This record gives sequence, C-alpha cells and structure tokens, in this order.
Amino acid sequence: MPEFLTLLPPREALARLLAHLPAAPIPEIIPTQDALGRVTFAPLHAPHPLPTFPRSTVDGYAVRAADTHGASESLPAYLTVIGEVPMGGQPDFSLHPAECALIHTGGMLPEGANAVMMVEHTQAIQRFSDSVVPSSSTEYGIRNLRQAEIELFRAVAVGENVLQTGEDVKTGDEILPAGAILRPAEIGGLMALGITAVRVARRPRVGLLSSGDEVIPPDAPLQPGQVRDINTYTLRALITQAGGDPVPYGILPDRADAFRATARQALDACDLIVFTAGSSVSVRDLTAQTIDELGSPGVLVHGVNVRPGKPTILAMCDGKAVIGLPGNPVSALVIAQIFVVPVIERLMGGQPRPRPSTPARLALNLPSQAGREDWVPVRLISSPAGGYFAEPVFGKSNLIFTLARADGLIRIPADANGLAAGEDVEVYFL
Amino acid sequence: MPEFLTLLPPREALARLLAHLPAAPIPEIIPTQDALGRVTFAPLHAPHPLPTFPRSTVDGYAVRAADTHGASESLPAYLTVIGEVPMGGQPDFSLHPAECALIHTGGMLPEGANAVMMVEHTQAIQRFSDSVVPSSSTEYGIRNLRQAEIELFRAVAVGENVLQTGEDVKTGDEILPAGAILRPAEIGGLMALGITAVRVARRPRVGLLSSGDEVIPPDAPLQPGQVRDINTYTLRALITQAGGDPVPYGILPDRADAFRATARQALDACDLIVFTAGSSVSVRDLTAQTIDELGSPGVLVHGVNVRPGKPTILAMCDGKAVIGLPGNPVSALVIAQIFVVPVIERLMGGQPRPRPSTPARLALNLPSQAGREDWVPVRLISSPAGGYFAEPVFGKSNLIFTLARADGLIRIPADANGLAAGEDVEVYFL
Repeated sequence: MPEFLTLLPPREALARLLAHLPAAPIPEIIPTQDALGRVTFAPLHAPHPLPTFPRSTVDGYAVRAADTHGASESLPAYLTVIGEVPMGGQPDFSLHPAECALIHTGGMLPEGANAVMMVEHTQAIQRFSDSVVPSSSTEYGIRNLRQAEIELFRAVAVGENVLQTGEDVKTGDEILPAGAILRPAEIGGLMALGITAVRVARRPRVGLLSSGDEVIPPDAPLQPGQVRDINTYTLRALITQAGGDPVPYGILPDRADAFRATARQALDACDLIVFTAGSSVSVRDLTAQTIDELGSPGVLVHGVNVRPGKPTILAMCDGKAVIGLPGNPVSALVIAQIFVVPVIERLMGGQPRPRPSTPARLALNLPSQAGREDWVPVRLISSPAGGYFAEPVFGKSNLIFTLARADGLIRIPADANGLAAGEDVEVYFL
Repeated sequence: MPEFLTLLPPREALARLLAHLPAAPIPEIIPTQDALGRVTFAPLHAPHPLPTFPRSTVDGYAVRAADTHGASESLPAYLTVIGEVPMGGQPDFSLHPAECALIHTGGMLPEGANAVMMVEHTQAIQRFSDSVVPSSSTEYGIRNLRQAEIELFRAVAVGENVLQTGEDVKTGDEILPAGAILRPAEIGGLMALGITAVRVARRPRVGLLSSGDEVIPPDAPLQPGQVRDINTYTLRALITQAGGDPVPYGILPDRADAFRATARQALDACDLIVFTAGSSVSVRDLTAQTIDELGSPGVLVHGVNVRPGKPTILAMCDGKAVIGLPGNPVSALVIAQIFVVPVIERLMGGQPRPRPSTPARLALNLPSQAGREDWVPVRLISSPAGGYFAEPVFGKSNLIFTLARADGLIRIPADANGLAAGEDVEVYFL
C-alpha cells in the first residue's frame, strides 16, 4: 500500500487536533487602543445609542420637512433663519413653522426640525438695515446668514440628510460577538461608545523547544559541523504575527532527561508547545518519545500526507496542544503555518478568517505526486496585462533562502497530478 | 462639466504625492529577532556560504559514489562502516575505497565522501565476535552498526543526497535587496548567517492631528451634541499595522493659531502628518488653510474622485507629506488605506507588495456612478461550493459599525456602472 494512503491529509490531521482543544480562551482586560489584532472574549453590547443625537450629514439648514413641501426652482419656499446650531453643543432654540436654522455636518438637529436642506439648494436673502440683498449661499458665506431669510428650491423628506439617534447601533445591541478580531474599524467603534478597555483572549503562550546537537545560538561562534538555530526565530516571528506570545526555551541538549524536564516546564507555563527537532534521527526519536510521555492522550497524529512536512507530530498532553515540527527550517515554517497558526487562532477563540492571499496565474507547469498535498514556494511577477504570475522558486526544500525569495506558497491538492502553466492559483502570503 | 472630470482619480492623486517624497528612508540598526515587518535599508550580503559544509539531507551512509556503481538488488555492493559522523562536529576520519560512514540528516560529509546512500537501500551485516548476522538496517537500528559491513542495493550519483557548501547562498551573494520586508523566512535566513542585528528603515513617525469642536476624547463624559474621537484610534491602529509609528497630537481647538502651532510642531517631529478634520465647514477650511501655509510646495491635490473621501487633501510641506482626511470616520479609514498606507510604505523604501485580499463572488448587483471610483464595504460569506460570496454591507457611509461589520472593501473602478451579482471581485481586507 503506498505510504500516502496511511497518512492523514493535513486538513483531517488539523481537525483531529482542533477537536481536542479547550473550549474557551483565557480572558484579560486591556486598553482598547492597544487591542489591535486581539480577539474579543465575550460579546460586547452598546452602552448607549450611536449617534447619541440626531445629526446632520450635510452643511445646510435644519428644517421642518412639511415647510418645504412643494418647493421648486420656479416656486421657492421661504424660511426664516432663527439661529445656528453650535458644533459640539445643544441648540438653545426650537423650530416653529416657517423657521429654519443653520447647521453644519455633524451638528445636532434642534427640537422641531426633522430634516436638513443642503446649502446648495438654498439662496439667502440678507437683511442689512432695511435693504434686502439676495446672495449666493455658499459654504463660505453661510456664517453671515443668521437672522436672514432663505429661499429653498426643492423639498426634503422627513429624515433626509439626518442620521437618527441609534441609526448605527441601539442601546443594548450586540456590537461585536465573542471571537471578533479587533481591527482599526472595531477599535474605532469601541471608542465611539466610550469603551476604552476591552476583555480579550490572552495571547496564547507558545513554548518553543529547539533541539539538535549540531544547532547553536545565532550569536555563538560557528564550528565545523554546526548550524545556527533558525527555527526558534522563524517560529517566534510567525507566532507573534499570528497573535501568540512566543516563549523560547533554547536549544535542548540531546538527552531524554533534558527533553522531559524542559517539556514539563513548558507544559506548565504555556498553552501550546512546539518542538522543532534537530535533524538527526536520535533527536527525532527523542522528540516523539518525549511528546508521547508528556501527558494524555498523547500523540494523535504522527506523520501527515503533505510535502514538505511528512514527519509532523500532533498531540494533546493534559489539555494542551503539543506540535512536533520537522527540523528542516523550510518544512518547519510551512508546517507551522498549516498547524501552529490555526491552533493559536483557535486558542484565542477567533472566528475563522480566510488566510491572506492574492490570485495569480501559474507561470510554469508544476508536477506533483498525486495522493499527497504539496506546498510550493512561488514568487509573484507583475503581468504586463495586470495581475500576477506565480513562478515557482526552485531550490532544494531545505534551503531557507528559497523561502526568503518567495512571496508565498501555493497548494497543490492531493487529488491533482500537478498544475498546468496558466492555471489560476491562490498565492498564500508567507 | 460633471464634477468627477475635474477631480483626480485616486491612483493619479497618489502618484502625484509619491513623486514628491524623499528618495531615501532614515536608517536604524535593530536586533534581527525584533525586525518582523521591518524593511531593509540597504542590500545585505552573505558573510559566508550556506551551508558552511557539505551536509547530508538523509539518514544513511556517506560513501564514495564510485564504490556504489553497478550495485543492484541482485548484485549488491559491500562497504565497510568505518565510523559515525558526529552531529555538530567534524568527522575525525576520511573515507578510503570500499569504506563508508554512518551519517544522519544534517551531518557533515567526511573527507573522501561525495554522496550519501539512504539507509532504506542498505542492509547491515553485523559482526559480533565471529558470527555474521544479517539485520534489517532501519532508522532505529543504525546506531549499532559501527564497524559492520553493509550491503548496498543501488548506486548513488556524485552529490546525491548532499547539500553542497554554498548551495543556498555563496559568500558575498546579495541575500536581500534594499527595501525587503522582513518576514519570518528572512529573519530565519539572517540568523542562519549569524546576522543578529540589521539595518532597517526607521518606522515613519506619523503625526495625527484631530479636530472639531464637537469631538472629545473617548474617556471624557459625553455632553449633548458631542461625539467621541474615533479617527485618532482607527488611524493609530492602521498606521501601526502598516509599519508606522503613530504620534497623536490630540484634538485641536477650532482656532487658526492652535492649528498652525501644532502643525508646525508635528512637521518638525514627524515624517508624515495626517489631519482628520472635524465635520464642520469651519474646521475643514481651517485644515485646508493650515496645510497650505505650512510649507512649500503646499497642497498638491484638493479633492479626489473617489467615494467615500472626495474632500481629501494631499500636500508636501518642506519635504514632508501632509494628508488631510475627511472627518467622517469611515471615509477617513478608507482614504487612509488608499493614501496614508502607501506613503508609509514608500517612506520605509519597501518594495511595493500586493495588498492582502481574497477572491469572492459578488452576492448582489451593486450600482455605482460611472466616472468615479467607489470603495464598498462587504462581508465574506462562505459559499457551500467553496470560496466566498461578497455581500455589500448596507448602511450610511458614515457609520463606523458599518465598517466593523465588513470583512473588507471592494473597488468599483471609475469606468464601471457598477458590478453585477455573480461577478468575481477581490476583497481587500480591512
């Protein structure tokens, strides 16, 4: 039986892991202005309506709509301007029949008014001493028009050019569900309601355990046969990007006791543990064994039908997710995007969101082995006709700069024998 | 003449502003591990090759390829295992003809070896005292195979299963150009080369000047006619997201002297100034006038052919970009994505990158006025057939929660009379 039939496809493997995750995130309260990218813990409700008062959406005159009925270019209506609505204040007058008031965009409608006539559809007749001087009522002129009379050349309907109290949200409305990701618009909406602190899911703490006798910290002198730790840093960045709080535990010595002790410590302190095994077989074995012994139920998935990343381990140990990534930095990063990022998102209780991508046309034929999902690094090349071509970045899969030269990854589904040049693909940003 | 013919389309307006920006960003050196999302100031070159030594990509035996020529299942070759390559060290032996050495993935090839035979294609013959015991040479068994003889069932070519020195990058190679955005992969690549500090463009400082007599800070008690400041917070979040460093200057009193003094202060301290005018006409006038007097050449664009956001002002004052956004929070945020984000990116010297988006099919007919570019908030709805429908979020354009209910924006080009239900659209994430 071909091996790919015995390994789970990535989506099923992920589903199996997600099914075991704790139901609720851990909450904390933080200032709304610092909550960009954070996820709401519970639904939020409006403490008061928005707007809190009926507001004009234009510059013009607050009117009683009935006073304008029938007005036209040939048969204007005439209203007396009895005042100006102060910005940021409440008008100290109310409108009676045949009266109107100057109002600016955002101004509060005076009592008695139920619509706003745009200044463009009016003309002022100024009264200086005894003379009546018609004047174009422009944006720049309206400040001089108090206590004047205006002509209106059209009618307005009740509510026209007015934002009603509660038109955006009403008192008690659910403004955000639990699991909403706070983007600039949500932060603005909360501020509009005076919600200056917000209960969000705590960033999941992600313990990072590197290993491999050949792996040294990037600032240590490099001896023959040694390589610098890449995975701690690519994963630290990826986890930060995904909203998690990376907690590096350094490079473990290649011994069972060290693995066990550090894994135990990380399991106590973190919400998710990620191992990146060194590349030697002994370290891979040690990782698998450590994960299996760490807690119950232990390993759920060992090996995934994906390239790169076949040796991935997914486990749950005493209520916490544990993921064993391949040691190869490219595989580790690709697989972390497939498994670690969704777990972080789920631990924050976030609504599933589409992964950012851009459409492109494949520049070359791309063969793949049917029955296995492939993720291929591509570069985006602007097409003269608009849009992008996706050009596969060639290079052995374990070269980190192969990935650095790529804009994103395309997915070749397991049921495909590859993709043809010219095919439409989605490029998922790295 | 219809008004839209006299206003610049957004792309041309942006191009006019970008053409005036300073040529080079301002550099600073920061730890590579904290450089996620930052932009390289200058090209970076490899201080040494990667890998630094020839590495095995598999578990198996380092061999001289010539010793394996002709080997097959029916006619195996025989080699003597003379040692094991230590992980993270240099082998203290070299291979002579008919010799091989145990090697693990990532191990350094011993002198004399030029290829690696995968363990799966070998079988060991163990020599304990005088007996010869054939044994399956599995991953788990190879540790016991020192000083044994192995059978090889196939040949390997020179270089097979080996990453050569410099195969990823060679000494002196340009590993990243100036203007590269540092993602997890780039950070990993730099660490692999021991580049633990990196010269990047300083985050552009973006001065935020709010105004409007009706606008109060979100934590102040709300009086009738007042609204809380939204724009400072939506823009602060957006600017942070785009890689800028927002510097809020508070809500300006509606007076020319206050505008001038604060604008002058912001111009000295920041790389870009963003005004969000209050909604009243007097504050809009004050903003336009302040920007025009702030420095030369002053206002480049006043009014853009886009909805929402027509009253946008783009200016250059003494070498610094100044942008006047509409006061309406929705317009301000949409327009900031069109103008403020690209200016921040350009000030960092970043390579232009596609804006993250997802493809979708429009759920409803969406009319628009030909001759004007429209940006319409939409919600993504998973389609039962896979992919997404984009459903326009209705609501007056100045309601902040209209935007909070949207996943992204779609662009209706100026030359369209709208878009039809079922059309393919790109949804740009909010």
